[in-house]
Amino acid sequence: MNKYVIFYIIGWILNIEAAFMLLPSICAIIYKEKSVFAFLITIVICLFIGIPLSLRKPKNRVFFAKEGFLIVALAWIVISIMGALPFYISGQIPSYVDALFEIISGFTTTGSSILTDIEAMDYCMLFWRSFAHWIGGMGVLVFLLAIFPMTDGESIHIMRAESPGPSVEKIVPKMRTTAILLYKIYLGMTLLQIVLLLLGGMPLFDALTITFGTAGTGGFAIKNTSIIPYTRYQQAVVTIFMFLFGVNFNIYYLILLRKFKESLKNEELKWYITIVTSAIILISLNIGGIKGFFKSIHHAAFQVSSIITTTGYATVDFNYWPTFSKVILVILMFIGACAGSTGGGIKVSRIVILLKSVRHEISYLTQKRSVKILRINGKKISNETARSVNLYFVAYMFIFTVSLLIISLDNHDFTTSFTAVASTLNNIGPGLEAIGPMGNFSNFSNLSKFVMMFDMLAGRLEIFPVLLPISLGISKIKSHKLTLPR
Amino acid sequence: MNKYVIFYIIGWILNIEAAFMLLPSICAIIYKEKSVFAFLITIVICLFIGIPLSLRKPKNRVFFAKEGFLIVALAWIVISIMGALPFYISGQIPSYVDALFEIISGFTTTGSSILTDIEAMDYCMLFWRSFAHWIGGMGVLVFLLAIFPMTDGESIHIMRAESPGPSVEKIVPKMRTTAILLYKIYLGMTLLQIVLLLLGGMPLFDALTITFGTAGTGGFAIKNTSIIPYTRYQQAVVTIFMFLFGVNFNIYYLILLRKFKESLKNEELKWYITIVTSAIILISLNIGGIKGFFKSIHHAAFQVSSIITTTGYATVDFNYWPTFSKVILVILMFIGACAGSTGGGIKVSRIVILLKSVRHEISYLTQKRSVKILRINGKKISNETARSVNLYFVAYMFIFTVSLLIISLDNHDFTTSFTAVASTLNNIGPGLEAIGPMGNFSNFSNLSKFVMMFDMLAGRLEIFPVLLPISLGISKIKSHKLTLPR
Repeated sequence: MNKYVIFYIIGWILNIEAAFMLLPSICAIIYKEKSVFAFLITIVICLFIGIPLSLRKPKNRVFFAKEGFLIVALAWIVISIMGALPFYISGQIPSYVDALFEIISGFTTTGSSILTDIEAMDYCMLFWRSFAHWIGGMGVLVFLLAIFPMTDGESIHIMRAESPGPSVEKIVPKMRTTAILLYKIYLGMTLLQIVLLLLGGMPLFDALTITFGTAGTGGFAIKNTSIIPYTRYQQAVVTIFMFLFGVNFNIYYLILLRKFKESLKNEELKWYITIVTSAIILISLNIGGIKGFFKSIHHAAFQVSSIITTTGYATVDFNYWPTFSKVILVILMFIGACAGSTGGGIKVSRIVILLKSVRHEISYLTQKRSVKILRINGKKISNETARSVNLYFVAYMFIFTVSLLIISLDNHDFTTSFTAVASTLNNIGPGLEAIGPMGNFSNFSNLSKFVMMFDMLAGRLEIFPVLLPISLGISKIKSHKLTLPR
Repeated sequence: MNKYVIFYIIGWILNIEAAFMLLPSICAIIYKEKSVFAFLITIVICLFIGIPLSLRKPKNRVFFAKEGFLIVALAWIVISIMGALPFYISGQIPSYVDALFEIISGFTTTGSSILTDIEAMDYCMLFWRSFAHWIGGMGVLVFLLAIFPMTDGESIHIMRAESPGPSVEKIVPKMRTTAILLYKIYLGMTLLQIVLLLLGGMPLFDALTITFGTAGTGGFAIKNTSIIPYTRYQQAVVTIFMFLFGVNFNIYYLILLRKFKESLKNEELKWYITIVTSAIILISLNIGGIKGFFKSIHHAAFQVSSIITTTGYATVDFNYWPTFSKVILVILMFIGACAGSTGGGIKVSRIVILLKSVRHEISYLTQKRSVKILRINGKKISNETARSVNLYFVAYMFIFTVSLLIISLDNHDFTTSFTAVASTLNNIGPGLEAIGPMGNFSNFSNLSKFVMMFDMLAGRLEIFPVLLPISLGISKIKSHKLTLPR
């Protein structure tokens, strides 16, 4: 274990977090809010720990997959512990556990809130909450890679551990260039949405925070009634951008290179569009009786985009929808967005690989010979990938089950308990019944809140980085050197 | 495709069903019930189709895995179509769809009922319903193998397709001897339970039907309040036998051979005992406030044995239990009994293999080298088995999801819809809310009933035999000859 590399990177992460906190501080100054002091104190604490750590440049930079997972898990825990401080120090969230829940929900782009009255919060606090979505969406370590000179050998392990999806594809040969490109696309789309919302007459503060929540597929709103108070046009902009941020960013890169044909060939994208379209049609028909035709499509499209991308915004309280529509939403919660997007869930490509494996198995069972090769996007799926996707699914279900068991001790009804786990593990935000889009997570015990914090992190970091430190604690894993470029 | 073999075996299956129907006919005669005519008519129909088919002995007896799956799927559909006739002809269940649902629930050992007043039924009908559990528990084709001379090559394909669990182990070299042994153990344990219930003062009719439901892990009761009306001793006998029928029958064979050490080494059995014990303790503690200490353990033990073995009997209405206990029961629904038992669900050994694979994957992710070998019962799990178990799980979840979607069209609440699928796909019987242990399935639409019939069959036959005919319909699967002994 190379402790020095870990300390060094954690140090830098703290410095970056301090820098990020300047933005809500500026917001507090503009709105003349006293709670600015909470941010200033936290910035000092971050730098006090971060600067000494980041000054000790490690001589030995040998770096393993294990360290990659550990760094990612640790970094996310550290930024959360620090990120929760402003809420707590300012007294705006009196319980530190609640503050931690809120910021983990922010960074992991979940959007589940323990706040019972969002509108009572200071603007700078609302800004920080939503900005956490934006930071967490693309990943704070990917950000570090973008600004920081690191060898490809080091960065690939970090990127693999932090990025969503079954496999990390390098868009360009160098990892750092990939990270910069991803952040450029992310920033560009963010600015575009802000402009479109402003053009629709939305106040700047609302446009910024709502866009942060959309870009990171987070879902923290700044109103108690989520996106209901906004105009039809503004809701439509959010619908479209939620959908867009759920697409694999590689596709935008291909579009930038004018490789339109190649970008349209993407199999996951086709499935994603098919699923979204089908879900919108089915829900529109199902709720049609309640609302007019166009109104049904509008709300169905918003909710489908919101849930499949795991954003979690709402323009209606879908708790009152028929069970069929609710079940579709619950299924979308599990499917999730595309790999390589900012969205959570199991991911469309994993679902496709899983279903293809089953079809494969059926023909194998009956033929024994001439087994077709599993392909996605025309590329062969290696046995290793297929197996790892299968096992991801099993680990996912296992964490789901244990979490449900612990949370059920709170004795909420079955649907609330079930969707609370579904919602946090898939980084969505709302669930059904007590935690519906107009509800909140304040009524859970601290134990349940800790379980859900774990689930949010496990969901965002795709389980293995979170499981690893646990398994490290209980079993000794030997280190094997990997050949890495210096 | 060898049609003649299929017709021939289906013919014999019909003859056997006719023979089985003599028992409820005798019951009707004893109780002087007019509905005996419904059985006699059905027997005539079965023989009318069955005898001509069974007389045409096929010359070409080449037999493939595909035919094995097809025969099993077809056989189960045919016995269900015929088995539903007595209910319908007698008018005791006026809707044929309901009658079909009831008998499929019987044969698949599910125990979900559409009856709103069980006690209003004739004795012979109640007998037939419960006897269907006993027939379906060990498998009607395994019965055929036991009484019928067939080559091992033929029978292994049938046995694989019909028997529960990830792999069929031959207890003895010859398949037919294995089938006979299984039925001997099954019959012996059945008789023992009947005797113990009679000694406890239970009327013969009750002892017979309740034992059939226990042995097949079915769960059809003959009272509206399930097992509540019986004494503490009688309930305890049922508890123990439900547990015993959930154990792999190979273990009883080892015990008969006095290989006690070997039988205790079985890893699945250890897990099964551990899960059952933990669940009983947790539920007892959780419901302890409601009932006294011993009463809690009594009811917890009954319900845990009933649900994990997928029997579905109840001594209390667990709808009123705290959510934690209900969640434990729902988790047990999915885990299910041991492979090679009469119980349903995913099976303990599959769960163990799945969890071991995840642990394996985690060490693989971090080490790359020196990967440990996956073992169960000290034996290496082949990659093929591990992959097939993984894919089984995926196919299972896929069927679960699609079923939930269709059933939710009925607009029952989420918990009812969710547990209706969980209960039928795992062959349990009751669920929660509207379909709790004191509820029934009468309020579902015919569409939902058909979906649940499919789920019950998919659950009992472990998915692939049921999926295969569907995939045969949509894609052409080439036949490859297998080398089979004549």
